[in-house]
Amino acid sequence: MESKLINYLRSQPGTELIGDDAAVIDGKIITVDMLTEGVDFILADADPTLIGRKALAVNLSDIAAMGGIPRWIFMAVALPKEVIPANNTESSGGALHLAQQLFTGMQPLIDKHHLVLAGGDTNTWDGGLVLSITLIGNASEHGVIRRNGGKPGDRLLVTGKLGGSILRHQFLFEPRIKESLYLNEHYSIHSAIDISDGLSLDLSRLATESRVGATLYEASIPIAEDAFKLAEQSGRLPIEHALSDGEDFELLFSVSADTSARLLASQPLQTFGVTLYAVGELTEEPGLRMLSPDGNLCPMTPKGFEH
Amino acid sequence: MESKLINYLRSQPGTELIGDDAAVIDGKIITVDMLTEGVDFILADADPTLIGRKALAVNLSDIAAMGGIPRWIFMAVALPKEVIPANNTESSGGALHLAQQLFTGMQPLIDKHHLVLAGGDTNTWDGGLVLSITLIGNASEHGVIRRNGGKPGDRLLVTGKLGGSILRHQFLFEPRIKESLYLNEHYSIHSAIDISDGLSLDLSRLATESRVGATLYEASIPIAEDAFKLAEQSGRLPIEHALSDGEDFELLFSVSADTSARLLASQPLQTFGVTLYAVGELTEEPGLRMLSPDGNLCPMTPKGFEH
Repeated sequence: MESKLINYLRSQPGTELIGDDAAVIDGKIITVDMLTEGVDFILADADPTLIGRKALAVNLSDIAAMGGIPRWIFMAVALPKEVIPANNTESSGGALHLAQQLFTGMQPLIDKHHLVLAGGDTNTWDGGLVLSITLIGNASEHGVIRRNGGKPGDRLLVTGKLGGSILRHQFLFEPRIKESLYLNEHYSIHSAIDISDGLSLDLSRLATESRVGATLYEASIPIAEDAFKLAEQSGRLPIEHALSDGEDFELLFSVSADTSARLLASQPLQTFGVTLYAVGELTEEPGLRMLSPDGNLCPMTPKGFEH
Repeated sequence: MESKLINYLRSQPGTELIGDDAAVIDGKIITVDMLTEGVDFILADADPTLIGRKALAVNLSDIAAMGGIPRWIFMAVALPKEVIPANNTESSGGALHLAQQLFTGMQPLIDKHHLVLAGGDTNTWDGGLVLSITLIGNASEHGVIRRNGGKPGDRLLVTGKLGGSILRHQFLFEPRIKESLYLNEHYSIHSAIDISDGLSLDLSRLATESRVGATLYEASIPIAEDAFKLAEQSGRLPIEHALSDGEDFELLFSVSADTSARLLASQPLQTFGVTLYAVGELTEEPGLRMLSPDGNLCPMTPKGFEH
């Protein structure tokens, strides 16, 4: 639905929708993400502090994808009048208590990244929990990284292992803010996107915006331990989880072959505890392909979470 | 609930919540308003284009209250999977069609005020319709009008008649953008707020931020014709609708007695079809009072729509 709507809106007068994780206006980077109950979380199962944390973290990840410095939070929330607490172990304290828990969950990220809550809108209604965060940041003095700067021959790198989001990672991931600022300052990053909807789907978006194709190297894709655990339950392969589950919130970015070699050899992000992995390359030939370990090159249909 | 939550948030580290309609960051004015089904509109009764229009218009009104120039829209929406169309006269076309109708309703305001849709987030879920708009504008070269600049002795003016919102006005009002820019350019406006939750409640907010009190002149409050019609149905007085219904989205602002006299005599906003009315004054003595037509001064409890 989302891509159909975006195509419709782009065809209308009065829209300037760019194919990036965030908009850039006069040196400010602006992103909006809305989480809804039953889609992004199950309120009865999840700790509300983790929902608040996630709502802020997904926006931070969008600003990381642009190489920006996040700063101002605006929180709009629709709170259910009747709150059923997780595990039914205690009385809920109602909508006000829920709102306080959502904010409490954001505070470690607010502290870590020196953010401020600068505004918002709170509502109580008969429906489920909806939390919409607008996050505004400053562009780095080294410029904004976009999706559309990828070039044929660029190598594709990711900032961590993929596929483990469903078990825990979706609530506990660390947005790659510092890593992105470091890369933006010291290297020429041609293009970037954060992996929110799955490696294959987000790569296809980056490739489309850059008007190139892409090849993934199956043997190189780093797979999270939780993806192996998950595969035992799901009956799917660990690599399938890594390719299409989404909510990894690692950065996928492209650099020249030279820069890639330097990055992989020196691993400069290990100072943040982060390892870089090469997962593929951008190609002149359009479309998405997978290079299997036995050397076969097969066309690939991007799969992932569609809103 | 909202005021309790704001008080809680203001007491926490990492917040900079000012008492204004919008936040001001490096010359940009930013406001967020979320509309929820069943509270701000009844989807089964309302034309979705009017809901889209209202969602944008309430944000425009916030920027008008700051004397700013609106420009960039970010639209976050939670769309119900099953859409029941108004009057059940035709098939709904589903969530995508609903989203298109919401945007269609915004387009006349986008055209009139030269806005652009610059980003957003669309979601489909099992719940009702939630529409959250973030609107970003530029501060005027004549500065930002705030709630906290009111002075004792200031006269209070409004940009139109009050109390008719429930019948139609809440969907069809014109945000006072051009009027506010004109006033900001040509006069010294000490303080302003838009009347979203009711004259008495929004006046008490302006007075509190300005650390003053206020007196309303009962005989001078301009009452909309629809408030008289409404009173016949509601059993309340027309003035009660004018004081506390909210959703008038007229500007309430304070100026010196001198400026007030000039504005009332020359009525400069008639070029926009708008008449200014004096409704009271700010006082050193804190609290809210009503001066009745027979000369009695009675304390007044602010009443209006609490989120």
